[in-house]
Amino acid sequence: MSQVTLYNYFRSSTSYRVRIALNLKNIEYKYSPVHLLNNGGEQFSPTYKALNPMSEVPTLEHDGLIIGQSVAIIEYLEEQFPNPNLFPRDSQKRAKIRQFCENINSFLHPLSNLKVLKYLEDNHGYDQRQKEVWINHWYQKGLNALEAWLQKNMGKYSFADQVTVADCFLVPMVFTSERFNVDLSPFKNIMSVNSRCLELDAFKNAHPFRQVDTPAELRIS
Amino acid sequence: MSQVTLYNYFRSSTSYRVRIALNLKNIEYKYSPVHLLNNGGEQFSPTYKALNPMSEVPTLEHDGLIIGQSVAIIEYLEEQFPNPNLFPRDSQKRAKIRQFCENINSFLHPLSNLKVLKYLEDNHGYDQRQKEVWINHWYQKGLNALEAWLQKNMGKYSFADQVTVADCFLVPMVFTSERFNVDLSPFKNIMSVNSRCLELDAFKNAHPFRQVDTPAELRIS
Repeated sequence: MSQVTLYNYFRSSTSYRVRIALNLKNIEYKYSPVHLLNNGGEQFSPTYKALNPMSEVPTLEHDGLIIGQSVAIIEYLEEQFPNPNLFPRDSQKRAKIRQFCENINSFLHPLSNLKVLKYLEDNHGYDQRQKEVWINHWYQKGLNALEAWLQKNMGKYSFADQVTVADCFLVPMVFTSERFNVDLSPFKNIMSVNSRCLELDAFKNAHPFRQVDTPAELRIS
Repeated sequence: MSQVTLYNYFRSSTSYRVRIALNLKNIEYKYSPVHLLNNGGEQFSPTYKALNPMSEVPTLEHDGLIIGQSVAIIEYLEEQFPNPNLFPRDSQKRAKIRQFCENINSFLHPLSNLKVLKYLEDNHGYDQRQKEVWINHWYQKGLNALEAWLQKNMGKYSFADQVTVADCFLVPMVFTSERFNVDLSPFKNIMSVNSRCLELDAFKNAHPFRQVDTPAELRIS
């Protein structure tokens, strides 16, 4: 197996998704930290921009390929390292799971990421409380749809009783929600799946507070 | 082939993506219009919410499956109707194309959609000009990355000389850019691929101004 390198940041929820997928597939990888705040943001350095023209994390390097976007990375890992599978074989089930992931990936995440919050701070003077109001507005709507989806599809994990890519997206989304004080108490399905996932080593070891670039004051054992 | 129904809206760029994919694959489908503005937004009706709990378009119905999210829909169509392919066979090429699509899907689109613009209007009094400033801020950054990607990968179309799913995402993105007066003149690659795609019937027939729910004053022949 040729070397896999993940350029990423401990607290980035999209990085967290890919770390979970790598762990679930037992893929050893080199963790290359990109600090999104230090030095004006290391993602804007010419060296990093050459790897990722969007200046975003994560970026995966494998066998000569360099790609960004967590969805593209995880689909690629599934194709290159199919055991264990993170997508079911059935096409309709795959479609449902991709829909779930995209609700997080293309709706909740883009509205809560660092760039957007910084724009609102710079242009509308948003403080932490106003950022939380903004995020809560979008998350309540999205979480309701995810909760309804789980009601139809969940078992022990997001989709029936096997861990799937849906769990790789759900757990980091809960982490971000908690960070911004989103009220998660109405979402029993989301929270119970999240808890069960966090009992697994693949999820534990991918947690933002257990990475090499986690600041000492946030680190957990 | 069992009936395919697409619940969608003429001007929605995510609907436009799926219409192009359906046309490229020569799939006949029933067009079921969902008007995003009339009656307070038909996507919020209980009937539609039962199909799509996020109250978003498009939604695809096929063979008992009902799913939202254009990425999930197009991946499903590729699996169910593989001829002609919209993704290359090579896994690394697929990854690059998915990265390109996700730059549009999970970065540009979510920040320019109707919900977000309405929030900025309601909470910060954004007028049309301010909406354009907001959209231009994000689009300039994203378009630069897409232009650089095309420089490395394009041929006659976005990826080499065959139409791929990348084109299904690029053309609607250009349509939205033009709608909000984004300055596209620096992006020669994007504009030349867009023009070549728009010469093809699959793209022409999917255009927002040629749909059954296109208002008369916008209709083109």
